[in-house]
Amino acid sequence: MDKAVREIDPNSDAAIAAKVEPRPIEEIGAKLGVPAEALFRYGHDKAKIALGFARHAEARAGGKLILVTAINPTPAGEGKTTTTIGLGDALARAGKKVAIALREPSLGPVFGSKGGATGGGHSQIIPMQDINLHFTGDFHAISAAHNLLAAAIDNHVYWGNALDIDTRRISWRRVVDLNDRALRNVIVGLGGPANGFPREDGFDITVASEVMAIFCLARSLEDLEERLGRMVVAQNRARQPVTAGELKITGSMAALLRDAFQPNLVQTLEGTPALVHGGPFANIAHGCNSVMATRTALGLADYVVTEAGFGADLGAEKFLDIKCRQAGLAPSAVVIVATVRALKMHGGVAQKDLGPENVTAVKRGAGNLVRHIENMTAFGVPVVVAINRFTSDTPDEIAAIEAACAAVGARVHPCSHWADGSAGAMNLAEDVIRLADAPSDFRLLYESGLPLVQKIEAIAQRIYRAAGVSAEPAALRKLTDFEAMGYGELPVCMAKTQYSFSADPTWRGTPEGFILPIRDVRLSAGAGFVVALCGDVMTMPGLPSHPAAENIFVDESGFIGGLS
Amino acid sequence: MDKAVREIDPNSDAAIAAKVEPRPIEEIGAKLGVPAEALFRYGHDKAKIALGFARHAEARAGGKLILVTAINPTPAGEGKTTTTIGLGDALARAGKKVAIALREPSLGPVFGSKGGATGGGHSQIIPMQDINLHFTGDFHAISAAHNLLAAAIDNHVYWGNALDIDTRRISWRRVVDLNDRALRNVIVGLGGPANGFPREDGFDITVASEVMAIFCLARSLEDLEERLGRMVVAQNRARQPVTAGELKITGSMAALLRDAFQPNLVQTLEGTPALVHGGPFANIAHGCNSVMATRTALGLADYVVTEAGFGADLGAEKFLDIKCRQAGLAPSAVVIVATVRALKMHGGVAQKDLGPENVTAVKRGAGNLVRHIENMTAFGVPVVVAINRFTSDTPDEIAAIEAACAAVGARVHPCSHWADGSAGAMNLAEDVIRLADAPSDFRLLYESGLPLVQKIEAIAQRIYRAAGVSAEPAALRKLTDFEAMGYGELPVCMAKTQYSFSADPTWRGTPEGFILPIRDVRLSAGAGFVVALCGDVMTMPGLPSHPAAENIFVDESGFIGGLS
Repeated sequence: MDKAVREIDPNSDAAIAAKVEPRPIEEIGAKLGVPAEALFRYGHDKAKIALGFARHAEARAGGKLILVTAINPTPAGEGKTTTTIGLGDALARAGKKVAIALREPSLGPVFGSKGGATGGGHSQIIPMQDINLHFTGDFHAISAAHNLLAAAIDNHVYWGNALDIDTRRISWRRVVDLNDRALRNVIVGLGGPANGFPREDGFDITVASEVMAIFCLARSLEDLEERLGRMVVAQNRARQPVTAGELKITGSMAALLRDAFQPNLVQTLEGTPALVHGGPFANIAHGCNSVMATRTALGLADYVVTEAGFGADLGAEKFLDIKCRQAGLAPSAVVIVATVRALKMHGGVAQKDLGPENVTAVKRGAGNLVRHIENMTAFGVPVVVAINRFTSDTPDEIAAIEAACAAVGARVHPCSHWADGSAGAMNLAEDVIRLADAPSDFRLLYESGLPLVQKIEAIAQRIYRAAGVSAEPAALRKLTDFEAMGYGELPVCMAKTQYSFSADPTWRGTPEGFILPIRDVRLSAGAGFVVALCGDVMTMPGLPSHPAAENIFVDESGFIGGLS
Repeated sequence: MDKAVREIDPNSDAAIAAKVEPRPIEEIGAKLGVPAEALFRYGHDKAKIALGFARHAEARAGGKLILVTAINPTPAGEGKTTTTIGLGDALARAGKKVAIALREPSLGPVFGSKGGATGGGHSQIIPMQDINLHFTGDFHAISAAHNLLAAAIDNHVYWGNALDIDTRRISWRRVVDLNDRALRNVIVGLGGPANGFPREDGFDITVASEVMAIFCLARSLEDLEERLGRMVVAQNRARQPVTAGELKITGSMAALLRDAFQPNLVQTLEGTPALVHGGPFANIAHGCNSVMATRTALGLADYVVTEAGFGADLGAEKFLDIKCRQAGLAPSAVVIVATVRALKMHGGVAQKDLGPENVTAVKRGAGNLVRHIENMTAFGVPVVVAINRFTSDTPDEIAAIEAACAAVGARVHPCSHWADGSAGAMNLAEDVIRLADAPSDFRLLYESGLPLVQKIEAIAQRIYRAAGVSAEPAALRKLTDFEAMGYGELPVCMAKTQYSFSADPTWRGTPEGFILPIRDVRLSAGAGFVVALCGDVMTMPGLPSHPAAENIFVDESGFIGGLS
């Protein structure tokens, strides 16, 4: 941006965060009983928890797990991460030993339009500038491991192709942790015999890599490497799968991931410990922070607050059916975040008309929230609603939400943690403590033994409320193939728009009577799930006409402005 | 690699390094007077020196600078980095306050065939595994900054192309810090209107990025950003240069580089401080560690030992004429590293025949060494020769080298630091102290005001001993254009094979009578030099048929094996 206009907005997240002096990370570690020698510091206020210590902690994971999820997202925003942080701070304020477990931000949205992922206002994790940029280098390590495998595939073909890889059927793309639409579809290997075999290829954003999904589901370095070895990267000319393990490169990939695999420890503005680790896409992957971080947190704290990507139909369902299934976790309570403004949009109001009170629209839009409550309740876990308050919200609008939720047995807590920090979420925290301390009866949506197509139907009908599923014949054949190959026990990872229960992103509120299309399916053999694609899935975002990157700067004091 | 054969070679560099317990990095910093609060630790044994402290130190740079360079490299190896480290340790053993300044390794050669860049045997910097892999993330930051600019260029064209960029004339390629030949020549932007404009593109290895060169020459964050803004990334339809500054992205690039720009501090196996920072290519860039690190070291230590890439004809010439010129540095002594085996190869012996004594070949090959001595002496700096000893070297072979060097006034010190650490390089260290403490008379090879073509001729004739220069007419026109654009004062960065004084990599020894071809020239306006290309320059290496990556592994204890 123009240097002349580089002024710091005092109400920006960066400016609010800059006013707080972070406590030494050893002090934050001590709150969880992590000794200084088990912390690999990155500067004064970031650290990795030594893998040996983390594995010791995760083996005795005993804390109560609180999942924060949300209604279907709208352009009005919900504040899920902000609420996760505010609730964590409030639990700490209530005297509980608490840890927050969050995903790491990707550079793509930071420089694009979505912004970072460190909360906002007075509910932030810090150092927000560091976390939103390179942090401890985890995503760079994942990019390097992913791209080393890609180079090894082309190199294998170049030097004789002993595995008989069909270069038309290499499914392993390359990655970059940026939004770069020009790399979505490329041709590589041009320039003659010294430069390889020309073929179609493409780049995904790093968070879409199967390496990222594996990173977030593995339980040990050994498990990590075994999963990497199972990844299918291509087919040979006989149409048999070629795995990463056959390319003899998984040792190097694991070496690249060794440090990254250790959970990161930071703090909130109020000094609550936060484990921020991993960040898989919530469409073609499962969309939540690493199992290592969650289980380590559960071994160190009595209450662990975590979040899942997108709305509860996608993010929470995957959190429960994929992450909890694989990692042996059971949540003690679920918090669903909504805002009055977002519910108005679900009730049919346009974004420009969100200002004035509109109780009718709120009542209509609350149907979206109610459905998510019903869905989460069906998992056997107690549910509570957090309203992330805006000053424009009126008492009657809040009352309308309370009435709708009461009908399905859920309490509603208007919260002001964005403006007030922990003090603004004490009501929520007290109810969460009460719910989490009561016995719960968590159950998965479907058994692992169910045929893959029936797993998809279970999610479509019971979570999305579809009338049925219509899968392409080729997709059905692939599901049969996966089962024949021994992958029938895997859970299903749905790749659907986050904006609607249906596959139509413009259909807000409470869609029903629709047939969910299954266009294609993919095997993520290393991550351990089968992806069902309900439409085009964007695995490489583009930049807007005026990306956030144009407003970011650093001054000579080292302050980085323009991040959000 | 096959898990069953994952055994650790006890004589490997990794195994030798693993036997030494690194001292806390605060203790290493204290040796240079860096207080703990000015160290941003990365784990227990790596740190960045806070920029404010580093800038304070570099402003009073007063130590003596020792440059380690070498004969033209051969497959027999020279051990330049190992000698740099051994000399640093020996100076410390002699009671001197010393710091070593080295480049950071690139992941490309680590996973390819060349290996890492942390020395060897008992002259290593540690933690070698960390330094050879991600270290403190500097190269990842440079990759991200480079590729963000690439994304911004395509995005600018996508959203209307207000700068009228000619998409056939975008010179800014993309980078990845790996050897990946399939990415040398690519077509991007395929897939229809939503995915951009198809055009030819390609990837370089990160160390070839102009961002890397700038990173290593900038004196402050402000200087860094200004240089980034001057980079020419494309031409518009009127054939005028389009700069990075016009894309409004340099603030974000500088923000991405903020932490990386701080010099890294590590230690040798003997606990000598080493600043390891930056690593530009030695062909299309200048091939030495950052000015920030070198000047900071000179502000903290009495003796700073550093090295330049490739042989003295390329690396040392650029170190002196580009880095010293831009950074206001003057070396106090130059060490030229050679081995008996390499001189035999320069004397015409094939690699398989290097075992037996061959005094005749050593005498013949010593001509290569003598020329480098003459060249360095012409810069007005005292020169000494270090022979990196092998057990197969014979007294008569050493004597032959001594006789040849004595004729041009240089002493020769056989050293055994690889096997013995500092004790094996004390003779060298004592002579270096003597030379460096005497007054020297450093002078650059050419004045900045000389026309660009005459700068090229000066290097070709006085360093390479070419009979003349033959430049393509288009290259000459571009040089005239650069001068008309105001870049006539810049130094020249030669891109020539490192294996010969000539442009023919197979011509070892002492080529003469040749005409140096100048195929093309390029402007690196941000780095501040004009690149003269004497042939094809490889900016993206490929992997060999059995890359080192196949032998690297990590065990559950976290030990990474297979690195060299």
